[in-house]
Amino acid sequence: MNVLRPGKRTVCFPQKPVIGGWASVAGKKESEGPLADWFDVKCTDTKLRQESWEQAETRMQQLALERLLQKTGLSPADPDVIFSGDLLNQCVGSSFALRNTGLACLGLYGACSTMAEGLLLGAAAVNAGYADRAVAMTSSHFASSERQYRFPLAYGGQRTPTAQWTVTGAGAVLLAKEGTGPRVSGATVGTIEDKGITDANNMGAAMAWAAYRTIRTHLEATGTGPEDYDRIVTGDLGKLGSDMVREFFERDGLKLGSVYNDCGLLIFDRQGQDVHCGGSGCGCSAAVLCGYLLGRMAKGDWKRLLFCGTGALLSPTTVQQKQSIPAVCHAVEIER
Amino acid sequence: MNVLRPGKRTVCFPQKPVIGGWASVAGKKESEGPLADWFDVKCTDTKLRQESWEQAETRMQQLALERLLQKTGLSPADPDVIFSGDLLNQCVGSSFALRNTGLACLGLYGACSTMAEGLLLGAAAVNAGYADRAVAMTSSHFASSERQYRFPLAYGGQRTPTAQWTVTGAGAVLLAKEGTGPRVSGATVGTIEDKGITDANNMGAAMAWAAYRTIRTHLEATGTGPEDYDRIVTGDLGKLGSDMVREFFERDGLKLGSVYNDCGLLIFDRQGQDVHCGGSGCGCSAAVLCGYLLGRMAKGDWKRLLFCGTGALLSPTTVQQKQSIPAVCHAVEIER
Repeated sequence: MNVLRPGKRTVCFPQKPVIGGWASVAGKKESEGPLADWFDVKCTDTKLRQESWEQAETRMQQLALERLLQKTGLSPADPDVIFSGDLLNQCVGSSFALRNTGLACLGLYGACSTMAEGLLLGAAAVNAGYADRAVAMTSSHFASSERQYRFPLAYGGQRTPTAQWTVTGAGAVLLAKEGTGPRVSGATVGTIEDKGITDANNMGAAMAWAAYRTIRTHLEATGTGPEDYDRIVTGDLGKLGSDMVREFFERDGLKLGSVYNDCGLLIFDRQGQDVHCGGSGCGCSAAVLCGYLLGRMAKGDWKRLLFCGTGALLSPTTVQQKQSIPAVCHAVEIER
Repeated sequence: MNVLRPGKRTVCFPQKPVIGGWASVAGKKESEGPLADWFDVKCTDTKLRQESWEQAETRMQQLALERLLQKTGLSPADPDVIFSGDLLNQCVGSSFALRNTGLACLGLYGACSTMAEGLLLGAAAVNAGYADRAVAMTSSHFASSERQYRFPLAYGGQRTPTAQWTVTGAGAVLLAKEGTGPRVSGATVGTIEDKGITDANNMGAAMAWAAYRTIRTHLEATGTGPEDYDRIVTGDLGKLGSDMVREFFERDGLKLGSVYNDCGLLIFDRQGQDVHCGGSGCGCSAAVLCGYLLGRMAKGDWKRLLFCGTGALLSPTTVQQKQSIPAVCHAVEIER
């Protein structure tokens, strides 16, 4: 029995699936930020020579998968199953990237939590013996997101102080039965939390409670505290949302201190790059995980990481209908 | 080891998770069709007293889950995990239905294949011991789909002869470790196939090849033929797509005959209800499975069913950009 109780939402993986490889793709702005050296592919042309922003996003996922296979020495037919999704309507970034590849695909929708959701399901599939090799993959693109969620870029809309900047980037992770690398030891599946935030330009606040709830649940179910981790990283609450998470824990008498960080804060220089509250988008936590976070794990800098993907589950239609913003957070524990 | 090889995409579930319950919700038109007697909840007001079509769709998922819990005697906190998704942008039908329920949620995107994808992942989770009880759930709504994918209803657009009618409906299935009911013995994960069909009013044709490929793969991996099943049911190719599937098999020398049917053909009286090629939408195969198909299994009419959810993975944006239509099909084997 793999399930830890109490805390039905938390699962441990006795086989500890190996993260056998990872690859990241970053846009121009991301490649000028503080994590530049950690990315595998840096795109100076954010349209990637495609005819549309959506096709550019599809191309980024293809590049992430190609680079992952290259880095791990696998052939295109080797992955047993791919878990992928993205922010575009009907997840076309993922579906179009994977068409006619012959790979078994399971489509996800978790907004910006997609990489954590894919990692969780990929590790679950390998741990259970359903797959020898599973891939988790996702992407986002600033330009395709802006026009879908907010305004066409040419409109030159003003951004509010709480707004986050959608990352142009992609990431792909290989989970394997055998091999060397960091290992996935457990995970906590998120609940959908809605505290009534209605400002679509303040998604950090909308997601903070979901992040806190999932991290708390994971710590309780595994009998650990923040001090047992080298890093607890959410992705991507930005400045405001991550401050809220710190505050929620302080109310419980727990100081997160330097153990805690957020992918939306790590990927950009907030002041120098004019991104207001920080980065966001499925590609944000994906590129940070598949560059900096797993890189630091591989270097031996950290032994235990709690990667907590956060997603705001709104749509432009629900915003127009004045609905509040539900959010989810899935946590995945990675150890060396 | 659960995986059957060759046919890496096919998985068997030695624990044979039990389908411990199911519930279906149907709209007005669906409740006037040939399967009317099989639905649990029949909505005469297709807006379900909500302010928008999207909220009506959310309400249908809530009703499906409530009725499932009622029929199985479970409390709202009993499911360990819910796999859900829908056709609305950012899958808001599902996310809004599940917010603040405290249930662990994993979001899916598989277009009209979502019920099969959820069933597959739910069975996989129960078989592996990750969950004692998992729920797979999805919905679609004619009015929310029409305005998102085609035209506002008030426009009164003409439909082409190959068009399908999006079902207003929802379905929820409980997968459990213990209990009585039909059991899930295996499944085949789909690949994303794109044969170059660009007509968004002919999705049956776009999905037919993916359906054929997955059914062939499942038969080969399990060493079975069409004659070994009481029913092989796709959902939802409609008249044109299902005729194509028959033809693909005939080229292989296999006659599907009366073993084969399609949820899009079952749910409506095509002539009498003016639905052209038949029904479609996530709610189509969900409501047919959670009404007629599992009902017939429970009555003992059938012993072995291959339920093949098919999804067209396009978006209005990709159609405008003149892209062809990728499609996927996941098959789930259910036995008594």
